[in-house]
Amino acid sequence: MIKKPDGLLKKFGLSFEQPDFFIMALTHRSMGARNNERLEYLGDSILGYVIAEKLYEMFPDASEGELSRLRASLVNQGSLAGLAREYNLGDYLILGSGELKSGGYRRDSILSDALEAVMGALLKDQGVLECKAWILKVFAKKLDELDLKQSLKDPKTQLQELMQSRKVDLPVYELVKMTGAAHSQTFSVKCITHVESNQSCVGSGDSRKKAEQDAAEKMLKIIKKQNK
Amino acid sequence: MIKKPDGLLKKFGLSFEQPDFFIMALTHRSMGARNNERLEYLGDSILGYVIAEKLYEMFPDASEGELSRLRASLVNQGSLAGLAREYNLGDYLILGSGELKSGGYRRDSILSDALEAVMGALLKDQGVLECKAWILKVFAKKLDELDLKQSLKDPKTQLQELMQSRKVDLPVYELVKMTGAAHSQTFSVKCITHVESNQSCVGSGDSRKKAEQDAAEKMLKIIKKQNK
Repeated sequence: MIKKPDGLLKKFGLSFEQPDFFIMALTHRSMGARNNERLEYLGDSILGYVIAEKLYEMFPDASEGELSRLRASLVNQGSLAGLAREYNLGDYLILGSGELKSGGYRRDSILSDALEAVMGALLKDQGVLECKAWILKVFAKKLDELDLKQSLKDPKTQLQELMQSRKVDLPVYELVKMTGAAHSQTFSVKCITHVESNQSCVGSGDSRKKAEQDAAEKMLKIIKKQNK
Repeated sequence: MIKKPDGLLKKFGLSFEQPDFFIMALTHRSMGARNNERLEYLGDSILGYVIAEKLYEMFPDASEGELSRLRASLVNQGSLAGLAREYNLGDYLILGSGELKSGGYRRDSILSDALEAVMGALLKDQGVLECKAWILKVFAKKLDELDLKQSLKDPKTQLQELMQSRKVDLPVYELVKMTGAAHSQTFSVKCITHVESNQSCVGSGDSRKKAEQDAAEKMLKIIKKQNK
């Protein structure tokens, strides 16, 4: 049974001038053409910006790469679904009967998308400044707990931990080429992962280890971009 | 010879309360630790949001996928570098001597990053509303020329055109599996591309053609996410 959205609004500390936006944000595409996908697209973009700006201010000495990694660690499907569960958002989702039966209200992707859609709805209803303030409120605890050290681990360790957290096979490194004379060799190493798709990229360095780290760093960038 | 940044400010129609932000936006990492990389990270995020919101308003009937494709067609390294050239931004870049000699002021990546960094600098100097207004001014012509039809082409055509525009090998489709009885077969097709890395993903459908379109659509999503 779907609960009335007023309870969720109260938990969120929100009120809408145009409540239709909020209802739409909770409406999964299994309900038909009027659903939350466009609002999710909008919410994803404002969320990315708000967290980027906040991290920029919080960590004046962090590099652009560190800021990107911090953001990816904060804003991803798992963390958004976790936040959605803190507000019991699943109880208020408006799902088609198929999704309802198969437990769609528990699924990470559906919860995460709906939370982003709420952000998009708020943006449309109340503008960027109000929306920004609310996003920062929702993320306040996660921002407090942020660990810059985590983002400073070497790329291979980070990539391995990422694969473990997603319960997929660990990355594989293959030496593909060695060039140059004995005293000045260049190593090329391919890194292969399986996340959304089989992906590989090649890193290079003057040692096999450095080439592996380089390949891992490139792969992290690719994956983090995909998670934006 | 580097021109004084005042000329560029005039072309941009901007004035900064804290001109140091603007100078930093023009400063490439080849100049050392104080460079535009952090501002570029910030600018990238505000740009993504501003264009997402604008497209959401311009195309009330476009799907989330269509909006994403439209944004990727507007906001990418090539288009940003093109805009930067319209303002002769390259003449004002502050580059280390190595980059200067090798013609860094002409390079797409450096021009594109610097333009995003200017957006980040403006955000810090004048806040989100002013920054948003300026981004929309800079993109006004591109937004006017937008072609929704382009984004409605079928996924295989879109993917092929994307590969052609990037001058990389065309995608390859391989039938990997057929399951089910003769009258209700399911086809699985692997799509392989080479953009940032070798990537493959598998699509499925009740005909080989549909499975190819499905694989192409998945690949487009992966690539577009990487270009955000």
